[in-house]
Amino acid sequence: MSDQAKKKIKFIDGGICAPAGFTASGENCGIRKNKSKNDIALIFSDVPGSCAAVYTTNQVKGAPLTVTKANIADGKAQAIICNSGNANTCNADGEYIARTMCELTGKALGISPKDVVVASTGVIGQPLHIEPIAAGIPELVKKLSKDGSAEAAAGIMTTDTYRKEVAVEFELGGKKCRIGGIAKGSGMIHPNMATMLVFITSDVAVTAEMLKKALSEDVKNTFNMLSIDGDTSTNDMAVVLANGCAGNALIDCDGPDFKTFMKALNTVTVWLCRNIAADGEGATKLLECIVTGARSKKQAQTVAKSVVCSSLLKAAMFGADANWGRVLCAIGYSGADVNVGTIAVAFKSAAGTVKVCENGAGIPFSEEEAKAVLSEKEIEILVDLGSGKVRSTAWGCDLTYDYVRINGDYRT
Amino acid sequence: MSDQAKKKIKFIDGGICAPAGFTASGENCGIRKNKSKNDIALIFSDVPGSCAAVYTTNQVKGAPLTVTKANIADGKAQAIICNSGNANTCNADGEYIARTMCELTGKALGISPKDVVVASTGVIGQPLHIEPIAAGIPELVKKLSKDGSAEAAAGIMTTDTYRKEVAVEFELGGKKCRIGGIAKGSGMIHPNMATMLVFITSDVAVTAEMLKKALSEDVKNTFNMLSIDGDTSTNDMAVVLANGCAGNALIDCDGPDFKTFMKALNTVTVWLCRNIAADGEGATKLLECIVTGARSKKQAQTVAKSVVCSSLLKAAMFGADANWGRVLCAIGYSGADVNVGTIAVAFKSAAGTVKVCENGAGIPFSEEEAKAVLSEKEIEILVDLGSGKVRSTAWGCDLTYDYVRINGDYRT
Repeated sequence: MSDQAKKKIKFIDGGICAPAGFTASGENCGIRKNKSKNDIALIFSDVPGSCAAVYTTNQVKGAPLTVTKANIADGKAQAIICNSGNANTCNADGEYIARTMCELTGKALGISPKDVVVASTGVIGQPLHIEPIAAGIPELVKKLSKDGSAEAAAGIMTTDTYRKEVAVEFELGGKKCRIGGIAKGSGMIHPNMATMLVFITSDVAVTAEMLKKALSEDVKNTFNMLSIDGDTSTNDMAVVLANGCAGNALIDCDGPDFKTFMKALNTVTVWLCRNIAADGEGATKLLECIVTGARSKKQAQTVAKSVVCSSLLKAAMFGADANWGRVLCAIGYSGADVNVGTIAVAFKSAAGTVKVCENGAGIPFSEEEAKAVLSEKEIEILVDLGSGKVRSTAWGCDLTYDYVRINGDYRT
Repeated sequence: MSDQAKKKIKFIDGGICAPAGFTASGENCGIRKNKSKNDIALIFSDVPGSCAAVYTTNQVKGAPLTVTKANIADGKAQAIICNSGNANTCNADGEYIARTMCELTGKALGISPKDVVVASTGVIGQPLHIEPIAAGIPELVKKLSKDGSAEAAAGIMTTDTYRKEVAVEFELGGKKCRIGGIAKGSGMIHPNMATMLVFITSDVAVTAEMLKKALSEDVKNTFNMLSIDGDTSTNDMAVVLANGCAGNALIDCDGPDFKTFMKALNTVTVWLCRNIAADGEGATKLLECIVTGARSKKQAQTVAKSVVCSSLLKAAMFGADANWGRVLCAIGYSGADVNVGTIAVAFKSAAGTVKVCENGAGIPFSEEEAKAVLSEKEIEILVDLGSGKVRSTAWGCDLTYDYVRINGDYRT
């Protein structure tokens, strides 16, 4: 992104309610026994908008995905309802429950149930009872407000330790436009040609077709390059809802406006990726593997993702151990065809940069310096394949005692 | 395997020295600073034998693999030298060091260096000095004995907590035959069309061609179905050396003798797989995923391996949590084309069997009973795909605090 383009996109407050015409709310409706944790969220646009989504490639799919797919087949939506605490997946009555969630939401908002996106996240294979949701929806509608982003972001959290919400502002043809987003992490995260739960709002006027194109292109370089634990969820979904309230000239084809929109969207999605990775289950460190010198995008992406997925490397990063052999090992088994003899590796953080490997072999480095670099909260693993000019970034986190603790008794 | 065939194959003592004509030894030569841990092993056959091997598919390959591949290109070998504590991988002088190890071993034994198999295991990317090895080899040769299997098995261990050695006895045409094996685990284990470090000896008379066929067929169902942490090592290698000292009629084609040999080999390799998995880094439990009702071997294997590789399921098994949704999730993202609606899942151990999922949806079960089943040391995860008659087994272990501890500071 050029400096000029970056300057034009600025972070603002308000999350998913920052775009004009959007309100949101969240609450505890009783799915979770712990009343201090929200378990349901509602996002509403004053007017119907263009809607696009990408879904998990896991063949075991949450029932809400099937219902959402059908509902937005016309490229249109006006509201998003999402519960946490239960994935509504592998339940015999799952689709009935998901459809009922849309009907109850549509009724309370006075819109068609077909304009409602539905999502669920939490434990797989436990019946989701409709009663608390039915009781909670009217309350959620009453609470809808321009200040509701934080409550909604809290409503979709599972093992996340903090809310992920972000918004940016930029201009299209002199009109102020905004994109906001919320996301939930933080385990079973290994999006594969799809993504985790992400809801993005925008007041940009854009056709459903171009919105779909923007999202599909973007996730290849963002959510699909993120992994917490290698487990591709059954309920992954990223939805963008754009209502046109900014009053810009409708984006209906490629061109400067579409490119600006994509840059702004990418600013939001990269922010969400970095924060999902940093707040991965049990994580103490954000890992960012930046591969350069690749022959192709595919080669760069395959290598970058393999490195952030290695359990051994993730554990070494937790221990601030510059065990770069594990980086080489992960490159070697990535499936990408590489020239081992030209690979260089370095670790970088706020504490400095340490080169550890050149031409595929180790070089002397200060263990003390390396320890300092790897003791920071954000670590860059720099891999130069020395074979071309293409680059790619993947995000992940360290593997810690707390990941084991959290997942040793997730249900109980 | 039929009961009759099973009866004919019996476990015996002696490990890799159980087959006639084999001796072995192990010692600490100074690669490891801790003198109480062996770091080098030698296996010797009185006469040259047929030799076959399979290697890692990791593109970053240990130097010893290149040298071994060249040495046994003629299908013949007489000795195996292997050090632990250093992988001799990603070192500029790696091949020179590996070749020198063969030369020193050949000289001390009075055989051609071309008849020596060389292997290394340990940290990647740290120079391997030849001095301690050069000093240790004559000592190793002196120590060679029929009781040397345990010392040799100890010499190839890294983070293993116990030695893996096994031997079986069976008959071919009235002649008593034996196969012995040793292996090292226990991290960076995710063999992929290859395997980890395994050395198998036999006194069977078999051509190099048929030995290669037996090993290649066998690893598909054994070592390739094993995963500790998803990381395919750079130094994986499985070698079989068969010297013909049993005096059986030479196996030079498929037939009853070859089938008996394959069954005996499989008994050894399955034993090694189960023990490598049970002693995975930090492991407290052996996981065995048995997939039945598959349409094809590939479908069965893909599903079984995906299940034992899931970090989330591995952590749940550590916590004795019957979170079967994670089994369904791992099946769904395995890449195998499955019919979710016909899948059944049960957990089984010495404490009993608990069915948790039928027709792709949860069924009521006793959490107390499930906890008891999952608190045992060996857990079977039974997956019936309900689509055919093919079955497959994969082996793995739970993900524990100790895996993180061990790998947080492996080098330091």
